[in-house]
Amino acid sequence: MAPPPPTPVVAPLIKLVVRVLTFICLLISLIILTTNTASVFINFDEFKLRFQDVKAYRYMLATIVIGIAYTLLQTAFTIYEATRESRIGGSSFLLFDFYGDKFISLLLATGTGAGFAVTVDLKDQFGNLTSSFDKFFNKGYAVSSMLLIAVLFTAVSSIFSSLSLPKRG
Amino acid sequence: MAPPPPTPVVAPLIKLVVRVLTFICLLISLIILTTNTASVFINFDEFKLRFQDVKAYRYMLATIVIGIAYTLLQTAFTIYEATRESRIGGSSFLLFDFYGDKFISLLLATGTGAGFAVTVDLKDQFGNLTSSFDKFFNKGYAVSSMLLIAVLFTAVSSIFSSLSLPKRG
Repeated sequence: MAPPPPTPVVAPLIKLVVRVLTFICLLISLIILTTNTASVFINFDEFKLRFQDVKAYRYMLATIVIGIAYTLLQTAFTIYEATRESRIGGSSFLLFDFYGDKFISLLLATGTGAGFAVTVDLKDQFGNLTSSFDKFFNKGYAVSSMLLIAVLFTAVSSIFSSLSLPKRG
Repeated sequence: MAPPPPTPVVAPLIKLVVRVLTFICLLISLIILTTNTASVFINFDEFKLRFQDVKAYRYMLATIVIGIAYTLLQTAFTIYEATRESRIGGSSFLLFDFYGDKFISLLLATGTGAGFAVTVDLKDQFGNLTSSFDKFFNKGYAVSSMLLIAVLFTAVSSIFSSLSLPKRG
């Protein structure tokens, strides 16, 4: 006989709110990052700085996109759980949540670290050249900050999924 | 009557090995980072580049030092657990491990992200100037790589401490 489904430790609605907040932060950081450009005129030639020119920003974009895909998937699962009062795949999927949340929170943490690091050191080098570059790097801070908030929300999800693990030992 | 102590889910010896490996990785990255300097002669003036001149490397140092302090503490706890077959403070300290490992793994992840990001983009800008700068940034990669391995070991510790959580729900 199958054991009865475990009582959820955290209410699905709270989980859902955290997932949606994570998604919103990631979406805002995606929009600011991909629309970030700066122009500078040198000898009447326009030189454009785009986010793709900074390799760390490209890496940040990759982590944000992976984070959004994972968060959308988990949001769908959590809506299902909240409405049906059971998890897709039952308790075996709890391990997927557990490892997934751990991995994604670490991945996003490397992304926000990369974003802040490259912004602070490149701004030191190039921020004083033109106000356009200065704005470009200020937007880099904005993206990194939104990503950092997303990391915190993902860490909360990760705590929830750890607490919801099937009993052992 | 106090409940009987829970059977450990992961053998203390395995936990200890992972902690020691984490410590070794962090120590190696600390040594490479703090001894990393580069010199370049411009018009007979020696210009020294030290790790302190790159702000992201200073941040990396901070995360490594916090990581070492935490790992030493946990190593001491794990040795106690392995020899006495019980955890200091009993199961109430399991929550400290749980949140501590989560926080430290995320912190070290931001550190390694910062290290790789600033190295790749500063090397693009300055690596071609002299072979001394090139070597400086190659050592930056070495530090970031050791820190990344430390992140993976801390993530394993974090998985162990999540699985060892007291039963709930």
